[in-house]
Amino acid sequence: VFWTFLAAGQPAGDRLVIGGADGHHLARVLRVRPGERGVAVATGREYDLEVLEVRAAEVVCQVTGDRPAGGEPALAITLLQATLPNPDFDAVLEAGTAMGIHRFIPVRAERSVARPAASRIQRWQAIIKSAAEQSHRGALPLVLEPLPLGAALEQVAGSPLLVLDPSARAPLERTDASRVAVAIGPEGGWTPGELAAMRGHGGVPVSLGPRILRARLAPIVAAAILVR
Amino acid sequence: VFWTFLAAGQPAGDRLVIGGADGHHLARVLRVRPGERGVAVATGREYDLEVLEVRAAEVVCQVTGDRPAGGEPALAITLLQATLPNPDFDAVLEAGTAMGIHRFIPVRAERSVARPAASRIQRWQAIIKSAAEQSHRGALPLVLEPLPLGAALEQVAGSPLLVLDPSARAPLERTDASRVAVAIGPEGGWTPGELAAMRGHGGVPVSLGPRILRARLAPIVAAAILVR
Repeated sequence: VFWTFLAAGQPAGDRLVIGGADGHHLARVLRVRPGERGVAVATGREYDLEVLEVRAAEVVCQVTGDRPAGGEPALAITLLQATLPNPDFDAVLEAGTAMGIHRFIPVRAERSVARPAASRIQRWQAIIKSAAEQSHRGALPLVLEPLPLGAALEQVAGSPLLVLDPSARAPLERTDASRVAVAIGPEGGWTPGELAAMRGHGGVPVSLGPRILRARLAPIVAAAILVR
Repeated sequence: VFWTFLAAGQPAGDRLVIGGADGHHLARVLRVRPGERGVAVATGREYDLEVLEVRAAEVVCQVTGDRPAGGEPALAITLLQATLPNPDFDAVLEAGTAMGIHRFIPVRAERSVARPAASRIQRWQAIIKSAAEQSHRGALPLVLEPLPLGAALEQVAGSPLLVLDPSARAPLERTDASRVAVAIGPEGGWTPGELAAMRGHGGVPVSLGPRILRARLAPIVAAAILVR
């Protein structure tokens, strides 16, 4: 069963032609064949498909049913993630997408060793799209270009803000809110200045417990605890 | 700060000589120096150390304090993990150790593509030891040789058994028990026969939600939800 995201709008009628990069991917990389089944996700809905015809870089499908998209969490999690050296940052995007993260904001933290260029966002979007297809998400997560911490905090103004800090006494726990931002530092952690800046934005320091987690593991654990 | 596990027994008096493979690792790989600080974990206790002298493959330390070990969860989780192709299985051991898993039982599942030999256990123990040192565990997790499912289930007789099954209706949730076993299948999932065998042992099918997780991610997510 293939899984694909429609760029915009709903299929009109009971036929759907998937072209562009997605059509090429289905026809040439996944090599779908007539009779094969899949799902296309458009804004908020999932459409069951059966492949009728495969052309050079286009797949013609019959729409056989539809329903509300089922892959999205009730809680919209924004991850303010300090940039990490690869393969760790890419792994966070891939696993975080499967975990249901709504939006990724890469943060140029003071102790971030990796300094990805803004152009890196294209590769990040490709990783997220592929992971969203594999995990059967109901919408594509967003990713922003890397931002300084101050600008990242402005993006989540109005959301409850949880700040991962191993020295915090309070454990990270589920929240009843409808959206939440979680800030996770690089391998060396947030600096005292960064922690103070986040407290100034209402950030609540929380810990994932007494064991030390690698930076690439912390966002997965945080998302696993929070997502609902 | 280095972290090391003492083979058996407590330090006698206020000096501790770390020899053997651990002494070699500290002296030759981590290259600790006089004055450096660390922690040695013995059964249930943590000992603060200061390095006095580094010999060829031996480190002489002053014991400067001690306290009950703080890195162990209250819940003892046994992971019955179907063997996975590498690097996935090694990654599960590494991350699972940092997450606080108490015991790993590799299971030769019907759909397991990887068929590791029993001798693989030595590499697994090395991965676990290294991860336990890095994550500051209070005890070394155990790992068994790969077992058929029936033999693995005998190992956890008497523990509540949760069986990861994407088609289950009940979500995986925290438990008040003091120990729990979690069975997680290979990339292709458990077979109907395996699911029936586990139900026969009192296994309760649970799901991690509507999104599809790679096999290597599922045990981390399960441990993140359960551990306390």
